[in-house]
Amino acid sequence: MHLIDIIQKKRNGGELSREEIDYVITEYVRDSIPDYQIAALLMAIWFRGMTRRETTDLTLAMAGSGDQVDLSRIPGVKVDKHSTGGVADTATLVVGPLVAACGGRVAKMSGRGLGHTGGTLDKLESIPGLTVTQTMERFIEIVSDCGLAIVGQTANLVPADKKLYALRDVTGTVDNLSLIASSVMSKKIAAGCDAIVLDVKTGTGAFMKERQGAVELARAMVEIGQLAGRRTLALVTDMNQPLGNAIGNAVEVAEAIQILRGELPSGDLKTVSFALAAQMLIASDICPSEDRAMALLDQAVASGGALERFARMIKAQGGDARICEDPGRLPNARQVLPLKARSSGFVGRMDTEAIGTAALLLGAGREKKDDAVDPAVGIWLLKRIGDPVRAGEDLALFHVNREGNLEESMRRFADAITIAEERPAPLPLIYTKIE
Amino acid sequence: MHLIDIIQKKRNGGELSREEIDYVITEYVRDSIPDYQIAALLMAIWFRGMTRRETTDLTLAMAGSGDQVDLSRIPGVKVDKHSTGGVADTATLVVGPLVAACGGRVAKMSGRGLGHTGGTLDKLESIPGLTVTQTMERFIEIVSDCGLAIVGQTANLVPADKKLYALRDVTGTVDNLSLIASSVMSKKIAAGCDAIVLDVKTGTGAFMKERQGAVELARAMVEIGQLAGRRTLALVTDMNQPLGNAIGNAVEVAEAIQILRGELPSGDLKTVSFALAAQMLIASDICPSEDRAMALLDQAVASGGALERFARMIKAQGGDARICEDPGRLPNARQVLPLKARSSGFVGRMDTEAIGTAALLLGAGREKKDDAVDPAVGIWLLKRIGDPVRAGEDLALFHVNREGNLEESMRRFADAITIAEERPAPLPLIYTKIE
Repeated sequence: MHLIDIIQKKRNGGELSREEIDYVITEYVRDSIPDYQIAALLMAIWFRGMTRRETTDLTLAMAGSGDQVDLSRIPGVKVDKHSTGGVADTATLVVGPLVAACGGRVAKMSGRGLGHTGGTLDKLESIPGLTVTQTMERFIEIVSDCGLAIVGQTANLVPADKKLYALRDVTGTVDNLSLIASSVMSKKIAAGCDAIVLDVKTGTGAFMKERQGAVELARAMVEIGQLAGRRTLALVTDMNQPLGNAIGNAVEVAEAIQILRGELPSGDLKTVSFALAAQMLIASDICPSEDRAMALLDQAVASGGALERFARMIKAQGGDARICEDPGRLPNARQVLPLKARSSGFVGRMDTEAIGTAALLLGAGREKKDDAVDPAVGIWLLKRIGDPVRAGEDLALFHVNREGNLEESMRRFADAITIAEERPAPLPLIYTKIE
Repeated sequence: MHLIDIIQKKRNGGELSREEIDYVITEYVRDSIPDYQIAALLMAIWFRGMTRRETTDLTLAMAGSGDQVDLSRIPGVKVDKHSTGGVADTATLVVGPLVAACGGRVAKMSGRGLGHTGGTLDKLESIPGLTVTQTMERFIEIVSDCGLAIVGQTANLVPADKKLYALRDVTGTVDNLSLIASSVMSKKIAAGCDAIVLDVKTGTGAFMKERQGAVELARAMVEIGQLAGRRTLALVTDMNQPLGNAIGNAVEVAEAIQILRGELPSGDLKTVSFALAAQMLIASDICPSEDRAMALLDQAVASGGALERFARMIKAQGGDARICEDPGRLPNARQVLPLKARSSGFVGRMDTEAIGTAALLLGAGREKKDDAVDPAVGIWLLKRIGDPVRAGEDLALFHVNREGNLEESMRRFADAITIAEERPAPLPLIYTKIE
């Protein structure tokens, strides 16, 4: 088999066979195909797309390129949750303890990746002492004991994705549905869970700005998961504003704890988290319906069971579980500075990605792979879309340690929020379920 | 400037600025842009194409990436001739001496490249003693003295093309009009001639199988040449059968000598060579019209002037000029074996590329860059399209040294020639002139 023939076949609009896709992935991971040929192939795929069959074959070839986690020693249905990423998306830290408290088994491996704010691993690491690096043995033990563990990926999980993603990132071939779907799903499949619940974001803070694209991505990922024999479903949810109000690391942990303690009776983060958790319970055969699941989840909060699960997991992963009772023990920034509204009206459109960048500029995220994240800094949003606002009123609180980028961060944040004269029509939060 | 932005701009259908194109070429030649990013850009160009302006800017950036030959010490108009390549295309060896004999200055640098049969350099090197490696000083001296020199490119002529071509070859991005045009024209422009006459081939033995594609390529190249301040024109000519009857190296030199000696009063190779030479004389301000040029060319053959120029150039480049009088001194193959027609009728369609491959299998061309070419071997075609043929009659003579691939070569040759019941309509030889 010659790679040049495979490149030309795809370039000319042909459909690659499973054997051709397997060849590409196997030989690329083995370093026997050069980056430049894969770069040309990726660009041809960007233009021509891939059929569902090709996308599934690609995903399975990638999933098989490294470690394949065996969770069979944990009894029952193991369930995973994945978000395509957004700003203030702390849902994993809410969903995990909730599902565990209801009897689910949440075994989650997270990647680190780049992002406006840190990823789930960075958020967890803002908890003093907690480590996300666990052996496979210990990971299985924690899931068995706590019903929940959230750890970093093993070093050799889907090496094909590591190589392909790094190459896509520098060759303008990131934004292709088949390549995104195979990147996500290969890791989910290799990570070994029986059920996978996907949260596909759409809006100004999401990778997929348009709802139609998000729905197509969700469909592609669900179909791949199902063809790979995993119970897979997706919710397509809104990312036209930050999901929670806290944007950062420790601040997001604090907001998750507020929800787990029942201190926030409503809010988008809670609504989406409960919806995802309900689907996870259904996929885990714990509940027969969404109504039953919602009742069980309410009870998990009211009883303190969910918070207790979170504390147990933190402890098992070496962290200071006292933060659950006393969030003040989380890292605090030196100063908290308000940002005031420039004019009066209603909060209209938000450029959510720019809001993420404002948090990044404070130190909450990383621009380059090796940048350090400051766990304490971040932004607390005080107004959401549709809220009335008066000129001079606080729009947000900035938790700041270094002042270098503060002005730029505040400018970007202020520019990102439109104050409208009329109250905008309310946004749907959950657009659709794909299963 | 970031290459990723340039890739995405082209990928999304944008037009690259001259600054962006200059950046790409300069930094790539300097090895500060990796192959994989250029591979992605080339594939995006394959899909999106380039405007004429982009193509011209690319060509000029490439032409400026290395040596730029200065021929100003040679008085008068210096003229170059380039063919996009075909089988039995010996025109350069006929045209060069003809134009020189008429007072033209032919300064030709040739690349080696891959091909079914050797390139012009390989053909010349079949002349005992002749070398195509000459210093720039000596090249200019030979052109001044003989009116004609044909040498290899300087090592640093258009390094951008060397890198880009090698990459295109392995990334499925060879067959794009802008990339082909810029590759050819950057070398012509850097080689320093004032006038450039292009022979763009179309047909079963040409890169451009369809006439429309050849015409577009010719237009693009002519426009680039003119924008670069060179007198440039192109003839689009037929390559649905080998141009000459000799396919190989020494055999092609022998056929060129036959024409220069006036021994072949007609034939496609002579017709095309005279047409190209006429254009070169006009572009050199030597003749005002094609009629005048044709008369001058006939005279150059009849007087022996053209043959004398060829002999002078051979001698100046170190070769045995006696081959002009005694072509038997050219390398001879051990055996000459006839290939007989399988059936009776008329020679119909020829798969000219396959005929080239048949010659390559005898050793006349190279599959890989470092393969050696056997100067003596080749095929003499005895029948051309439209000729009547009887079963058992000789179709061609195979000049053979090693018998290893002989059977395969003959099989391919026989398969490549269709014997039709009816005489096919005659093919035009020169389709159009672009200027």
